[in-house]
Amino acid sequence: MENFSFYNPTKIEFGKEKEKNIGEYIKPFNIKKVLLTFGSDRIKKDGLFDVVIKSLKENNIEYIEFEGITSNPVLSKVYEAIEVAKKEKVDAILSVGGGSVLDSSKAIAAGSLYDGDVWDFFIGKNTVQNALPIFDILTLAATGSEMNCGAVVTNEKTNQKYAIQSAHLYPKVSVINPELMNTVSKDYLVYSAADIIAHCIEGYFTASVQPTFINRQIESIIKTVMETTEKLIENPNNYDARAEFAWASTCALNGLTYIGTKDFSYPNYMIEHILSALYNVPHGAGLSVIMPAWMKWYYSKNSIQFERFANEIFGLYSSQEGIQALENWFNKIGTPTKLSQFGLNESNFEEIIKVGLGNAEYFGVGEIYTKEVFEEILNLAK
Amino acid sequence: MENFSFYNPTKIEFGKEKEKNIGEYIKPFNIKKVLLTFGSDRIKKDGLFDVVIKSLKENNIEYIEFEGITSNPVLSKVYEAIEVAKKEKVDAILSVGGGSVLDSSKAIAAGSLYDGDVWDFFIGKNTVQNALPIFDILTLAATGSEMNCGAVVTNEKTNQKYAIQSAHLYPKVSVINPELMNTVSKDYLVYSAADIIAHCIEGYFTASVQPTFINRQIESIIKTVMETTEKLIENPNNYDARAEFAWASTCALNGLTYIGTKDFSYPNYMIEHILSALYNVPHGAGLSVIMPAWMKWYYSKNSIQFERFANEIFGLYSSQEGIQALENWFNKIGTPTKLSQFGLNESNFEEIIKVGLGNAEYFGVGEIYTKEVFEEILNLAK
Repeated sequence: MENFSFYNPTKIEFGKEKEKNIGEYIKPFNIKKVLLTFGSDRIKKDGLFDVVIKSLKENNIEYIEFEGITSNPVLSKVYEAIEVAKKEKVDAILSVGGGSVLDSSKAIAAGSLYDGDVWDFFIGKNTVQNALPIFDILTLAATGSEMNCGAVVTNEKTNQKYAIQSAHLYPKVSVINPELMNTVSKDYLVYSAADIIAHCIEGYFTASVQPTFINRQIESIIKTVMETTEKLIENPNNYDARAEFAWASTCALNGLTYIGTKDFSYPNYMIEHILSALYNVPHGAGLSVIMPAWMKWYYSKNSIQFERFANEIFGLYSSQEGIQALENWFNKIGTPTKLSQFGLNESNFEEIIKVGLGNAEYFGVGEIYTKEVFEEILNLAK
Repeated sequence: MENFSFYNPTKIEFGKEKEKNIGEYIKPFNIKKVLLTFGSDRIKKDGLFDVVIKSLKENNIEYIEFEGITSNPVLSKVYEAIEVAKKEKVDAILSVGGGSVLDSSKAIAAGSLYDGDVWDFFIGKNTVQNALPIFDILTLAATGSEMNCGAVVTNEKTNQKYAIQSAHLYPKVSVINPELMNTVSKDYLVYSAADIIAHCIEGYFTASVQPTFINRQIESIIKTVMETTEKLIENPNNYDARAEFAWASTCALNGLTYIGTKDFSYPNYMIEHILSALYNVPHGAGLSVIMPAWMKWYYSKNSIQFERFANEIFGLYSSQEGIQALENWFNKIGTPTKLSQFGLNESNFEEIIKVGLGNAEYFGVGEIYTKEVFEEILNLAK
């Protein structure tokens, strides 16, 4: 077990109707004016917006609306919001939406207190020294951003889907009401399941040191996600399943699954980010395609762990059986497992690999993920 | 799944030699003078004391020594320390020791900023409004106090072993170096194992709502504790086992195992606290006696969960088999399972029950734990 530091000061307010108190949660931080970030006017149609502003008004918190953040969020929109935040002198960001809105909000929070280009933080030209306080109401469980200090944004000019991390970017309070997720489409439910499982397996398979206790905790998340996804496909209004799915999602990326590990990397993210950046493929859908292919390419490098995975998750014995069982499960729930399902084929490999080599460099795995390796994995995914 | 709030701002510094940086961890909080609390002069003999004061001095932090806190810590000692803390105008408490020193330190931290009697907080006469910042270097893994906001102290005049809880009592930084625990005696190792398992099962068996995901996380802790205890009995210097044991101990009582549960109680603690208060029985040893007896009395009230326990932990099927397997395992590792091992028998039941009825009232389970029930459980434990 490696030495580690763990610190996660985000307060979670989890459960039914918690969003009604958002003003009460924000007020103790002495906030007078927030930038209210969201995606589409869906939150106005379904009443969530009204609930939020009612609570803000009751607590004398002004708000400036910032609409139009899309999934696979883009840098141009972050720039735009930073300008508004600076001009309006907001004290905090309140994100209402899924991981894309929240990740953008983290970038906005950092950029609003920075004179330079916020992209500097993503490319390592500078580090975040400060950020506006971040609050959020989560409407989609997948990214885990609600209880961590990271964010991913795509620079659409350069096709770079890159990340920032800073202790300043932990949300102060995250509201997770599973009922707000009842309307998530079946497609986005299963993409989210793939996304959470990907968060779990990256370290699990790639770390050179991986405590058994952490293995067990990760497996408890994967089992829970698989079980509750199936229940939610059957009945999207199953509250307990929705709640366990959401909390498992939060736990998959709040730092606890990386305790005491060493040398882990994020190959599936690194590869999937190419697909999102180039073809706007939904992140989770891209991951369910990349994971089985990557696993088939990788398993012999850590066969004991792949056998453990097969055994603990599926009651099977060999690495290959475990990988196949995961792919079968993705097929069963209806998330893609082949590039062809996105209309992609060998003719796209060249441009995928071109961006991929840049990503590999950025992720610090350039020596491993060469052109030949990308070709091999893409062929396994085609 | 029930609504919940989760907030745990303690920073954990975990691993080899981390205690060498204690001054660096304290300094950012603008602390000039700490009350350095500890048990015996063992920490002076083994060199830990010197390491700590070296780092404090390097960071210009003054310290006042406060020695002599015992296991099953007593209120009189807390009073004594509060006087010193007030007189010396310390800015923080630095606890160096196990859960007893840390729990006392939390009470000292709360009492130092309070004009009344600190026992008021324990008996509900007042609530903690403020406390000195708490830091700690842990030398025994068992209580979980290093990452929660609770503390237990015995009022030796009234034989009440009671608790306080307040968000002000989260340690700011907890240092956990598993190597400092290598010298823990085999007895205290196995008592600690029982203590951690008790933390796990209280909610697991008594909650009226218990999410499956939380069951899985609890089981991952129990399995890890059992596995690593056996490894440590074999070789006390097995670093990875020591580290996983320690981190599992922290995770057993940092709030995450009670997420989304409802109506749980702490019957084993409630009963064991009698033994500690009356006979100064080591807390973990008392728990390994009470748990099997309590389980035999209780299992029919939640048989599905007891069958789950038998199956997940021991690969067995019936409630009774699971309980017997746990008792056998306690016997195997050498922690007591019968009152007679403390020299206690039926002649002690009257005084035990007298204190017990008071405890049950305090724990809010007075209606369930009547004289007859205590008798039944004690007979199962004799």
